[in-house]
Amino acid sequence: MPANLPADSVGLVTPRTLRFSEPLALDCGRTLESYDLVYETYGELNAARSNALLICHALSGDHHAAGYHTPQDKKPGWWDSCIGPGKPFDTRRFFVVSLNNLGGCKGSTGPVSVNPATGKPYGPDFPIITVRDWVRSQKRLGDALGITQWAAVIGGSLGGMQSLQWAMDYPDGLRHALVIAAASKLSAQNIAFNEVARQAIMSDPEFHAGHYYEHNVTPRRGLMLARMLGHITYLSDDAMRAKFGRELREGKLGFGFDVEFQVESYLRYQGQSFVERFDANTYLLMTKALDYFDPAADFDHDLAAALKNAQAGFLVLAFTSDWRFPPVRSREIVRALLDNDHDVSYAEIASHEGHDAFLIPNPRYQALLRAYMERVAAEAGV
Amino acid sequence: MPANLPADSVGLVTPRTLRFSEPLALDCGRTLESYDLVYETYGELNAARSNALLICHALSGDHHAAGYHTPQDKKPGWWDSCIGPGKPFDTRRFFVVSLNNLGGCKGSTGPVSVNPATGKPYGPDFPIITVRDWVRSQKRLGDALGITQWAAVIGGSLGGMQSLQWAMDYPDGLRHALVIAAASKLSAQNIAFNEVARQAIMSDPEFHAGHYYEHNVTPRRGLMLARMLGHITYLSDDAMRAKFGRELREGKLGFGFDVEFQVESYLRYQGQSFVERFDANTYLLMTKALDYFDPAADFDHDLAAALKNAQAGFLVLAFTSDWRFPPVRSREIVRALLDNDHDVSYAEIASHEGHDAFLIPNPRYQALLRAYMERVAAEAGV
Repeated sequence: MPANLPADSVGLVTPRTLRFSEPLALDCGRTLESYDLVYETYGELNAARSNALLICHALSGDHHAAGYHTPQDKKPGWWDSCIGPGKPFDTRRFFVVSLNNLGGCKGSTGPVSVNPATGKPYGPDFPIITVRDWVRSQKRLGDALGITQWAAVIGGSLGGMQSLQWAMDYPDGLRHALVIAAASKLSAQNIAFNEVARQAIMSDPEFHAGHYYEHNVTPRRGLMLARMLGHITYLSDDAMRAKFGRELREGKLGFGFDVEFQVESYLRYQGQSFVERFDANTYLLMTKALDYFDPAADFDHDLAAALKNAQAGFLVLAFTSDWRFPPVRSREIVRALLDNDHDVSYAEIASHEGHDAFLIPNPRYQALLRAYMERVAAEAGV
Repeated sequence: MPANLPADSVGLVTPRTLRFSEPLALDCGRTLESYDLVYETYGELNAARSNALLICHALSGDHHAAGYHTPQDKKPGWWDSCIGPGKPFDTRRFFVVSLNNLGGCKGSTGPVSVNPATGKPYGPDFPIITVRDWVRSQKRLGDALGITQWAAVIGGSLGGMQSLQWAMDYPDGLRHALVIAAASKLSAQNIAFNEVARQAIMSDPEFHAGHYYEHNVTPRRGLMLARMLGHITYLSDDAMRAKFGRELREGKLGFGFDVEFQVESYLRYQGQSFVERFDANTYLLMTKALDYFDPAADFDHDLAAALKNAQAGFLVLAFTSDWRFPPVRSREIVRALLDNDHDVSYAEIASHEGHDAFLIPNPRYQALLRAYMERVAAEAGV
């Protein structure tokens, strides 16, 4: 490991790509004839193939969950606080797999990929992907890596929805599901925020009905607005107050429409930098996957019935200040698990960080993850 | 009164316009040489001139608070539920005055008005107006109408901020201040939502740096997004669940980006209809007036000190499900009033309607207003 990387880092990592040539039938009724999944791994798969963890990403995440791509990288992967030697997902014991989901924009087949049928980017013709589709594709990734049963499938937010879906769709495909800061379905308010984000993107004149690649532009303004709005919902009112309050960037009111309050400056920066690294069509797809997720809908809206066949052990975690998926939404999941006498651990973690808390180091959060992962390790024999 | 109007309506009303030729010095340092204020009145001013109520409007409101402009109007004024014979602001006893604030787009001087210096609409050159500026202009309106002391100044949301400012700036200019669903300043989260709305408008290519009138266009998309976002913050999560849940307009998922969930349909409709009746530059000004409001800032952030000289009696009301200005923000006002031993009544009204509750009939809300207005009437001798 290069000397300048932290000792508890997984170090330098290199993404790999797997091509899947068996057609994948999607919930929307369409079929992907073939597709790529890009993924990273940290740690070593043991001989018994019993120590594999699958990390599922959230709306704007990707496969780069830990470590560094180059020694010059300023930041590690998005969940580096939890993945590495001695960390809750301890790479001395576990083999951690993290992928970019289908429809993504970081190397897995998605709207920016070339559609073999046309020779041009899929753009808006990429099919709408559901959480269930993702889980189906992740199952194939595991099979390709020789993993028939994950020690745990782990995710926060939209990632937690994937863990939950795994436990329903492949009961013996995982021993544990970690469902963090998630919900079993979006509320009307959640959908409403997604809809404003989508309208921001789709009404941008540079969206060109999703075919912006061919015009050599991107709907920057719309994607920026979507991200700014997203950020408000990731942070709690308290966190914003603590971070920014009513602080003025220039110390006094300017009586104009330039940036005045620090919170405005923060949001504009977040919006602008997101545009450089994310694709608008992927953003649209991710919000639809969120909106559509509702596994109880096929069971007469009875979540317990949807979870009846699950065999995994569950760790469900919620954060007190998360107003996007507040603890009451996690309790719905816990109640449905208890109704089935399933094995579930649940905790509400005091935090001022809002929904973002699942990405931020917090002693109690990490202690709970560690404690649960001790058990996962024991069962994996590692 | 035409036969088809409700018996408890103020009936047909006609707005009037007053021109003010004395220059108005604004907080921003600029001066309006002259300006118009458009207003409506309901009821009769008594001989003692003691029975006048001033209604202050919120972000998208105007002077048309009650009654109908024509017998064909589908809807009455925005606060018709509270203003009329036998209603809480009883026009058999009170003389009610409601104006469109400076910077508005419904007849009072604002960005759509012709700038006498250029012969073109002010557009973005219209000065940023503060709550204090509004109150100053409202004082002159009262003077022009022969009202030296209002029986009460009344407002919800941004309107409540005006009542509060009145009590600070003209202690003997009113006997009572009704401060409903308001706050003594915006939180960082409140400002953040306003900033996203502003960016939506200002980044619309048809905004033309605010000079869109001259291009015969309006920043429709931006203003629509701003309004959609606003609506999410006016409703509670509960209200949205009750109103829309996850209901699908076509009964099933469409796997596309057309309207699918009822809540999407509602928001798009709200956004589209707003664009027909509101000006984008006015929207920008209103959000700035909200952001800037912070009367304690001049008193070392001590709200009690800011309210020290107030002489009015106060009725402060908050709604339990209002997450834009939640009860905790009203309690800050009440505490500052109590610290001064000022006369204050306070209630938190159980409601699922969110911030919008201040506009919606609710038995307890209306009973509290009635009870307080009995006292105001007694003191007014009516």
